[in-house]
Amino acid sequence: MRRIAILGSTGSIGHSTLKICEAYPDRFAVVTMAAGSNVETAFEQCRRWKPKVMSVAREEDAATLRARLEKAGVGGVKVLHGPAGTVEVSTHPDVDFVVSAIVGVAGLEATYEAVKAGKAIGLANKECLVAAGEMITAEARKQGKPLLPIDSEHNAVHQCMRGGRMEEVTAVWLTASGGSFRNTPKAEFDSITVEQALNHPTWKMGKRITIDSATLMNKGFEVIEACRLFNLPASKVKVIVHPQSTIHSMVEFNDGSILAQLSVTDMRLPILYALTYPERIESDLKFNVLDLKQLDFQAPDLDKFPCLRLAYEAAEAGGAKSIALNAADEVAVAAFLSGEIGFSDIPATISAVLKVTPDVHPESIKKVLECDAEARRAAAEVVAHRRGVEAR
Amino acid sequence: MRRIAILGSTGSIGHSTLKICEAYPDRFAVVTMAAGSNVETAFEQCRRWKPKVMSVAREEDAATLRARLEKAGVGGVKVLHGPAGTVEVSTHPDVDFVVSAIVGVAGLEATYEAVKAGKAIGLANKECLVAAGEMITAEARKQGKPLLPIDSEHNAVHQCMRGGRMEEVTAVWLTASGGSFRNTPKAEFDSITVEQALNHPTWKMGKRITIDSATLMNKGFEVIEACRLFNLPASKVKVIVHPQSTIHSMVEFNDGSILAQLSVTDMRLPILYALTYPERIESDLKFNVLDLKQLDFQAPDLDKFPCLRLAYEAAEAGGAKSIALNAADEVAVAAFLSGEIGFSDIPATISAVLKVTPDVHPESIKKVLECDAEARRAAAEVVAHRRGVEAR
Repeated sequence: MRRIAILGSTGSIGHSTLKICEAYPDRFAVVTMAAGSNVETAFEQCRRWKPKVMSVAREEDAATLRARLEKAGVGGVKVLHGPAGTVEVSTHPDVDFVVSAIVGVAGLEATYEAVKAGKAIGLANKECLVAAGEMITAEARKQGKPLLPIDSEHNAVHQCMRGGRMEEVTAVWLTASGGSFRNTPKAEFDSITVEQALNHPTWKMGKRITIDSATLMNKGFEVIEACRLFNLPASKVKVIVHPQSTIHSMVEFNDGSILAQLSVTDMRLPILYALTYPERIESDLKFNVLDLKQLDFQAPDLDKFPCLRLAYEAAEAGGAKSIALNAADEVAVAAFLSGEIGFSDIPATISAVLKVTPDVHPESIKKVLECDAEARRAAAEVVAHRRGVEAR
Repeated sequence: MRRIAILGSTGSIGHSTLKICEAYPDRFAVVTMAAGSNVETAFEQCRRWKPKVMSVAREEDAATLRARLEKAGVGGVKVLHGPAGTVEVSTHPDVDFVVSAIVGVAGLEATYEAVKAGKAIGLANKECLVAAGEMITAEARKQGKPLLPIDSEHNAVHQCMRGGRMEEVTAVWLTASGGSFRNTPKAEFDSITVEQALNHPTWKMGKRITIDSATLMNKGFEVIEACRLFNLPASKVKVIVHPQSTIHSMVEFNDGSILAQLSVTDMRLPILYALTYPERIESDLKFNVLDLKQLDFQAPDLDKFPCLRLAYEAAEAGGAKSIALNAADEVAVAAFLSGEIGFSDIPATISAVLKVTPDVHPESIKKVLECDAEARRAAAEVVAHRRGVEAR
């Protein structure tokens, strides 16, 4: 029986994780949960799952939740809040597996503390690897506990890696849908609207990740994640555009063999894989091979998608540059979504922030968060400057 | 250092195996070899590789070879002949790995004896699995030694299987180029000429295997091989047409994940894999992922290719029916190549032979060879009858 903590229980990955726990009640028990500010869903989850601990973002939300639970006669749930609450959720002694799916740097500390506490981790939080990957993977290796990727690409890589030994891997090929603008001429990039950018061809996702898919920055983050997770230099992590997103990624071995993983595009599959690894268990998430029809591939256009090039730079440098890449991107995407800057200003903003970011390697989560804050300040300045330029 | 016996050293697989031994002299030593009737090449191989034993097919060829070696001053090569000579090659005490690549039932006994002698086997001989698969795989399991497939499809399956445990495999998908007549309407099948049938789109191979590719019987044999090699029922071994032959095969797991293997189409790759397993070593057999471009897939048309349907029947029945499938096909293909029967008569002949073949399971190589001879007799009769029908 896997005893699970879910960081980000009210989000999309949290939701899919609970679906799996529902489908396999004899295998998985939800022990603790951390939500954000969605008190209504947190309340329903407490009622349904009776976790030992539920943590929410703010103190007032915790008070509201406590009152509602009492009124509904739901006992035994310890309600906490804030970063300390999330850490208590992730390091709870009854937990052996932590699903890390809080979006943003908010998930960093709780995940790192869980790794230090010797928990196995299912990792869906991008920042854990992009901003603090060196620290977190080093600690996981020290603990001898797995960091299992919960996203279709790295999960595919993890599966393909089983076909050989780490030292036999010569390259990892991450597949990219190519985003909404794969076939859009570069000349039209300046005039891309928010509505166009939010229309992703394959996955339905949150706004930031949809824009990150359109700029290929999402793939850039995945390059960094793959570097950290599999301890590979950026030169060995490659990207190939594959519009159907059927092959989720590939691993190339020294003898010339390449293994690829295919499946339905459903997050429950990588979650199930992570929760049951090294076993696999029967699921209804079947892909019909006879439906394959046609798979297309092409090289990514780094000229049209400079974000991917910037990510490679940050992947090689690591440390503060990786942190700044993520932080500046978040600020730039928010500015694009609110109409402050144009689509092509996103990479321009990030590039400007990377230039002023020192090549240092923070060695604590606190230092990581400081670098993150500094990059956000720098990005906000660049955005303000670009708005000023446009206003003139 | 792998100490290797090559059964079929002068054939295509033998040639590729020697290329690999040449490229990695510190890893592989050729200890013994068995050739057929190509005395000239056998002589050159003795001079180059100085095997402890070289066996050829006929007594007179052995005498010629001995004389030539003596004249050339090449000492230390024991020259043998016939089935007993091939067994001595495959069971030589200094050998630990046998590459079984003699075409036809001639390779059966020597391979079976090698398995019984505890050698690891690299298997390129189809008949070992199609005609005697139950016996040979049972013996290999008993010995605890691997039977490593040396052909692109089963080798791909073997690689993909590493992504999970045997009991987690729900299906094996063998890819088929679809043969030369993938797009030929069924109505034209009766008038297919030998020249048309010998023109294979992807691989350059021998005549029989090229015709077997055109009828999809080759894929049918591979279905049987996969059933025996991986101990799967025929219902779990599926075929999908993939004209580019880039994905060499796939394995589907119970959770819904599918692993696929891709590589260049070069037999040295599966040979190298088998010789180094469970290690992989650096090779120059690289596939450029950026050249993938487009991969197509479609279901095989069992109506157009009845040989594949017949193979499934034989795979399920096993024993004498599998033996008869191979024997009758060899006779029918030879009759087609010599112009005695038409292309559509190939499956008709095999079907007729299967009907008269008893559902028995021979338990010795001798019994297998008797079944094989009986099926050939029956097939020759059917061919003679069909010629008679056509002559009228």
